[in-house]
Amino acid sequence: MPSFIISKSKLFSNLTFLKNHINSQIACVIKDNAYGHGIDEISSLLVEFGIKSVFVKNNLEANKIKDKFEHITILYPSAFENLGSNIYFSVSSVDCISKIPPNVGIELKVNTGMNRNGIEIFELQNALNLIKQNNIRLIGVFTHNGYGDFGDENLSDEFISQQKKFKILKEKVLEFINKHNMPKPRFHSLSSSGAIKYKNIDDDLVRIGIAMYGYLGISNRFGLKPIAELWADKISSRFLCAGSKIGYDGKYVLKSDCVVSSYDIGYGDGLFRLNENHSELRTKEGYLVLPRMSMDSTSIISNKDRVCIMHDADKIARIFGSISYEILCRISPFIKREIVS
Amino acid sequence: MPSFIISKSKLFSNLTFLKNHINSQIACVIKDNAYGHGIDEISSLLVEFGIKSVFVKNNLEANKIKDKFEHITILYPSAFENLGSNIYFSVSSVDCISKIPPNVGIELKVNTGMNRNGIEIFELQNALNLIKQNNIRLIGVFTHNGYGDFGDENLSDEFISQQKKFKILKEKVLEFINKHNMPKPRFHSLSSSGAIKYKNIDDDLVRIGIAMYGYLGISNRFGLKPIAELWADKISSRFLCAGSKIGYDGKYVLKSDCVVSSYDIGYGDGLFRLNENHSELRTKEGYLVLPRMSMDSTSIISNKDRVCIMHDADKIARIFGSISYEILCRISPFIKREIVS
Repeated sequence: MPSFIISKSKLFSNLTFLKNHINSQIACVIKDNAYGHGIDEISSLLVEFGIKSVFVKNNLEANKIKDKFEHITILYPSAFENLGSNIYFSVSSVDCISKIPPNVGIELKVNTGMNRNGIEIFELQNALNLIKQNNIRLIGVFTHNGYGDFGDENLSDEFISQQKKFKILKEKVLEFINKHNMPKPRFHSLSSSGAIKYKNIDDDLVRIGIAMYGYLGISNRFGLKPIAELWADKISSRFLCAGSKIGYDGKYVLKSDCVVSSYDIGYGDGLFRLNENHSELRTKEGYLVLPRMSMDSTSIISNKDRVCIMHDADKIARIFGSISYEILCRISPFIKREIVS
Repeated sequence: MPSFIISKSKLFSNLTFLKNHINSQIACVIKDNAYGHGIDEISSLLVEFGIKSVFVKNNLEANKIKDKFEHITILYPSAFENLGSNIYFSVSSVDCISKIPPNVGIELKVNTGMNRNGIEIFELQNALNLIKQNNIRLIGVFTHNGYGDFGDENLSDEFISQQKKFKILKEKVLEFINKHNMPKPRFHSLSSSGAIKYKNIDDDLVRIGIAMYGYLGISNRFGLKPIAELWADKISSRFLCAGSKIGYDGKYVLKSDCVVSSYDIGYGDGLFRLNENHSELRTKEGYLVLPRMSMDSTSIISNKDRVCIMHDADKIARIFGSISYEILCRISPFIKREIVS
């Protein structure tokens, strides 16, 4: 039976580094089943580490962990319902504000240059008026500076420009809340790589997602350690001669006589479907994974009872022209999660 | 909130075609959350259609639907436990047989040329002796002729060779069970495309997976209709001028002034992460999907409240160099399934 093994010590080591390196409060992003790691398991570990504030994907995720944190923000709410006084809703459009019942807590998202989600800066005044008028609690105001998340260690002009826009925006919000005697909302704009690179953070918190799982979008990993490994069990083995064909359409042809085993994991478990056009994929131990991968099983030149098919999502991402985020968040929630020290 | 909408009439139309076209009993493959469609929802519809026999991935899936079918075979068992008299276990190695408690029902898998799972033909006698000796109930003997699943409508030499091997194997099994006065097991070797193409089926059943969902691995779809569509809701909209950059690293640059909206679905929901190296992806309605896709949202040149991001998995598969199976089985189980007539 496959299992996704989570190392508590590696997670805590990553969080300790991030706490020491970043000059700001840390809130953790556990959306999308904690980037595939398992929201229940990661939440329990974060509570033990002392994390108080998290971000989740939707109402379903918030409900799963609602008793664990002081502050839970739903980034993509499916409804604005009263789920508990510690649960807040991200709001990305002015239209949306009119659908929110009084006394519900929200974090207002503002577009500063990603041109994706959030209200425009010219809509801010209107949004704040509506929030006040409808007795909605403004808990936070935030943006997503995605220009810091990829590339190298340098900060681009676009990154700096977004930070400047956010600064102007903060001033406008503060002016409004001071004028109306409202409580000060929290401000945040940066996620993992941006928070690690930027030296002049003056937000109330940073949102740490990918970094705590041991990865970054930028080339330098700053010593962070991937916290999880994906293991699978042998289904059956056979000795095959050179020239034997394996799998669908016999696309892999063995180069020499050897033992080939199948293991109980495949693309139906969230892996990418390796085929003959991809470059070589090997297990952690160095065993060759043979294309084409099946939905529920994978042939590997190995006779081991158990193999580690993923220990570094970046290596797998390179083979499939993607990023660690996509590799991780796809790991099937039906695979058993196991926490080791 | 995204939803995966399942059409009952299309599923029933596919099943009716398959029943009429294929000269054999039909058992349905609902493994991997019914190829991503939702095992609970698809099971209920199959019961209504009159299906009695299904194949699931593992013990977890069998447990979910154990009261719905007369015959459930677990293809990749996580343990050989007594889950109910209607639940059987696929067995793929001789070693495995010694782990099975007495009176448990199994289907013995045999390798006829895929060189992936199953015992070798030379191990058959040994396996049958062990099954008899340990009082295991031999419910079925099967193979997987994967050479019929892809390519065109012609049957390859490898396909025919596997069918011949399976015929020899059936004779050996029948000889053994007659000699020992054991009940006759059911024999099966073909899945969707092979079953549709092959005219001389003399098995007891065929295993229908991808075809009932409306797809085939071969180029001709025989009029089968994709049964599901994936829809998403608008998060926010903005008017942007030509030259505006969108998303991470601003990789997409708008060619003309237009309204761009973000929708609440992304690669964290099981979609492939569209990036600037992929060819054009459009919604069912023809709206352009803009790279780079985010984990939880997707920017589209549209102002609609709701868009259909997937109505034909084959079209998406071509963009990502994959197959409909991978596109479908990845759809997040956390997305709401909705059955429409």
